[in-house]
Amino acid sequence: MNGADALIETLVANEVTACFANPGTSEMQFVSALDRQLAMRPVLCLFEGVATGAADGYGRMAGKPACTLLHLGPGYGNGLANLHNARRAFTPIVNVIGDHATYHRQYDAPLNSDIPTIVGPNSLWVRSADSPETVAAITAEAITASYGPPGGPVSLILPADAAWLEADSEPVKAPVPVRHAPSGETVEAMAKALRAAAKPVLLLGSQATNAAALVQASRLAAAGYRVLTDTFIARQPRGAGVFRPGAMPYFAEAALADLAGVDLMIYVGTVVPVAFFAYPDRPSVLAPEGCETLTLCTRQEDSVAALTALGDALGAPATGPVQPLTIAEASPTGPLTPQSAGISIARHLLEGAVICDDSVTSGGGVAAACATARPHDVLALTGGAIGVGMPLAIGAGVAAPASKIVSLNGDGAAMYTVQSLWTMARENLDVTVVVFANHSYRILNIEMGRTGAGNPGPSASKLLDLGDPRIDWVSLAKSLGVPAVRCATAEEFDAAFARAMNESGPKFIEAAI
Amino acid sequence: MNGADALIETLVANEVTACFANPGTSEMQFVSALDRQLAMRPVLCLFEGVATGAADGYGRMAGKPACTLLHLGPGYGNGLANLHNARRAFTPIVNVIGDHATYHRQYDAPLNSDIPTIVGPNSLWVRSADSPETVAAITAEAITASYGPPGGPVSLILPADAAWLEADSEPVKAPVPVRHAPSGETVEAMAKALRAAAKPVLLLGSQATNAAALVQASRLAAAGYRVLTDTFIARQPRGAGVFRPGAMPYFAEAALADLAGVDLMIYVGTVVPVAFFAYPDRPSVLAPEGCETLTLCTRQEDSVAALTALGDALGAPATGPVQPLTIAEASPTGPLTPQSAGISIARHLLEGAVICDDSVTSGGGVAAACATARPHDVLALTGGAIGVGMPLAIGAGVAAPASKIVSLNGDGAAMYTVQSLWTMARENLDVTVVVFANHSYRILNIEMGRTGAGNPGPSASKLLDLGDPRIDWVSLAKSLGVPAVRCATAEEFDAAFARAMNESGPKFIEAAI
Repeated sequence: MNGADALIETLVANEVTACFANPGTSEMQFVSALDRQLAMRPVLCLFEGVATGAADGYGRMAGKPACTLLHLGPGYGNGLANLHNARRAFTPIVNVIGDHATYHRQYDAPLNSDIPTIVGPNSLWVRSADSPETVAAITAEAITASYGPPGGPVSLILPADAAWLEADSEPVKAPVPVRHAPSGETVEAMAKALRAAAKPVLLLGSQATNAAALVQASRLAAAGYRVLTDTFIARQPRGAGVFRPGAMPYFAEAALADLAGVDLMIYVGTVVPVAFFAYPDRPSVLAPEGCETLTLCTRQEDSVAALTALGDALGAPATGPVQPLTIAEASPTGPLTPQSAGISIARHLLEGAVICDDSVTSGGGVAAACATARPHDVLALTGGAIGVGMPLAIGAGVAAPASKIVSLNGDGAAMYTVQSLWTMARENLDVTVVVFANHSYRILNIEMGRTGAGNPGPSASKLLDLGDPRIDWVSLAKSLGVPAVRCATAEEFDAAFARAMNESGPKFIEAAI
Repeated sequence: MNGADALIETLVANEVTACFANPGTSEMQFVSALDRQLAMRPVLCLFEGVATGAADGYGRMAGKPACTLLHLGPGYGNGLANLHNARRAFTPIVNVIGDHATYHRQYDAPLNSDIPTIVGPNSLWVRSADSPETVAAITAEAITASYGPPGGPVSLILPADAAWLEADSEPVKAPVPVRHAPSGETVEAMAKALRAAAKPVLLLGSQATNAAALVQASRLAAAGYRVLTDTFIARQPRGAGVFRPGAMPYFAEAALADLAGVDLMIYVGTVVPVAFFAYPDRPSVLAPEGCETLTLCTRQEDSVAALTALGDALGAPATGPVQPLTIAEASPTGPLTPQSAGISIARHLLEGAVICDDSVTSGGGVAAACATARPHDVLALTGGAIGVGMPLAIGAGVAAPASKIVSLNGDGAAMYTVQSLWTMARENLDVTVVVFANHSYRILNIEMGRTGAGNPGPSASKLLDLGDPRIDWVSLAKSLGVPAVRCATAEEFDAAFARAMNESGPKFIEAAI
């Protein structure tokens, strides 16, 4: 057993059994060791941003980390943006970053880089396993650290010699940290404040949007309290039979209007809401001025227990409101729009489906229609770094092979990690990819006016428009092995999406909006 | 004039006139300001790794920086790998990284990140322009810093409010630092050591591989001294009429065999050669044991002046050997191989062409054949982070519009930044892209054995093989707007490459080897 074996054996012993990888020479021992431990599933990604986004999707669905295998500092760099998103989703991920042999680092070979510094800002924990005997223990430490709470990516650096040298060791078990419930006094204080407030709001984030938490939150709604969630959630059940809290609007002015008059905000697994960006003459903080703000439980604590205790303290009903099943009977007709696409998606979405949402300006229509669709899960873009929609779907597909995965993408976002399509085909994942092709960074056309920068002229337009040349999405998807179709009308899209739901394996739909 | 105007005006005043960009909301003021200063050419890239690699290619050809425009930490992260390569090429680049408004950072909005830390390892200089009045002066500082010597990427962080607030300022001139020649004593000492050595070698790197330096280096060859270059060079003229030094072999054992018996190595704009990776039981340092090592000039110094002075001190002839023009008269025939492709490329390569080389295991055949082709320039993969071949070509095409650009890529490497093809089409760049499609990470199959990891089994093969599904490169290139053809025989490739040289605009050739 060498250091690479010790690493993989410890990962597998702790149920880390999926590896999203793009290896290089320094990772060859890890790659070779995979042949000796078949419980670890290797998934090749043709770009590291695909691998890290896939690990995010996997972790959100599986509730346990996947590992990535990345090639030194540049390989990690390629995956950095989706690890930023994973950090904001609090997703446990064990990044394994190969490095030069310990004695080789000093010579600053071309691929040498300052890995600990590069990984720091998006890692809960960083450590280099510099000797083979320590690899197993350090790997267990990494796994535990990735769980947080509230969880996130960790970075285990594996020098080539620590991987190839003999490591006489057993796999080490990694304890999973437990979340603690808030104290009874905290819960009582919240109940008292809620009863006293004229217009209170509870704001849910991170763990507080999961299925068990929503059941408890629905009791608070039944007791008359308004419940909202963060704008972008890591994972949330939606649709028929599920409680539907409101969501903080994306644009600050809409959020402020929505919260006008609110005199108490209670945070449940989240913190004070802030604007996604600053704009001239608009506030950063979205809690109304003078509004009291309290925390029922932090992201580190047990949101489910906290909400249960609060419902009990308030004498809330045992159950609360849930969404009905209401889907359009007939296909929408006419030109394809995000709204008509949303109606079709809601019509045909399978129970237990997982929507991976990176659809930017096209997403609102889908979310509205799917609020009463068959029950499903939604994974959102938590960190604002576009290019996560298809990678998330890969990870969700590996973690939940019995579920239909639906990946919704803006065309600008989809181009970021377009290599994802190849991995979907290679692994025959049951993913339906929708790209909303409006041939522009539409959100930036909107934001340009909002930031006071005025209307785009010829030079500015060159940086916002994607229409010259027009990307032939169908050919692109097919070239990477995914069957594809283009839909220009609502009827075409409805039929194509229905077909995709009824067939297995990767499908691609260009929604020409 | 706002802060964004101050930035662009200062860039343009210092001849920084190309901007490779993928902006977001925090960069809208910069984008808008482009409409007010048309001397800055905006080039949209659909992924930041394309933008940074393009800036590298531009800087290598233009001898001055381009700027990039990147969206906070994740946007920079996406460009990190090619900035690692640019750092190893010593290419001046001014990265402009948009950030949240200064007062908004404290709220840790979703896209907030620790930008100074993330950019640090690949930046010669980092500074945030936090107030609009300082933007012009800080921009000038950035430009100067990017020149080094020996030059490299710098990171100018531009908060949104510093961009949108009024900045009553004039553009600031940025002095370009001068390189100093080594002292006369140093030159004399080198001459003396060379005369005394039994088997000396001069090793050239960075600036010492440019056209003027090679002319001087050829004099040393004429005087009987062996001259080599680093394995991977930022830019080097090659072909007929140009002095051809040897190159350090990639694999350590080949390098050590080549240098056996060498008793003196003199470094010219470079440092001690080391193995690209460490391997069990092989040395890291490639200078033979016991060999004396001296430095004629560092990367910071003036290599051309140093070589000139050394030639004079040795009484070397005024001119040295140059390559003949020797190209095959007839097309190669039979199955397409990297070697036959190399013969065809050499046959048809236009004078003044620029080869951007990310061809990994397929590159050797091309380099050998092109050694006596029409004079051209070669830009190599300096930092080992694959995915630079097409981005470099974009930058070279923008910097040298009169030159034919040839981008050579392994298929694994090309997939990293495949979005490049769209920008080539959009800008109608005169680039011929060749992808050598062997449907595997061939280098890793070789390296796996060399690292002692053995032969790949079923799991390992899943991470090395690209053949399932086979990428349809022709459809992929066409889908992004670039005319494409697949060549499976030497004759087909010869004809296709000849056509590409005779027509203008982007072309794509899949070399099915």
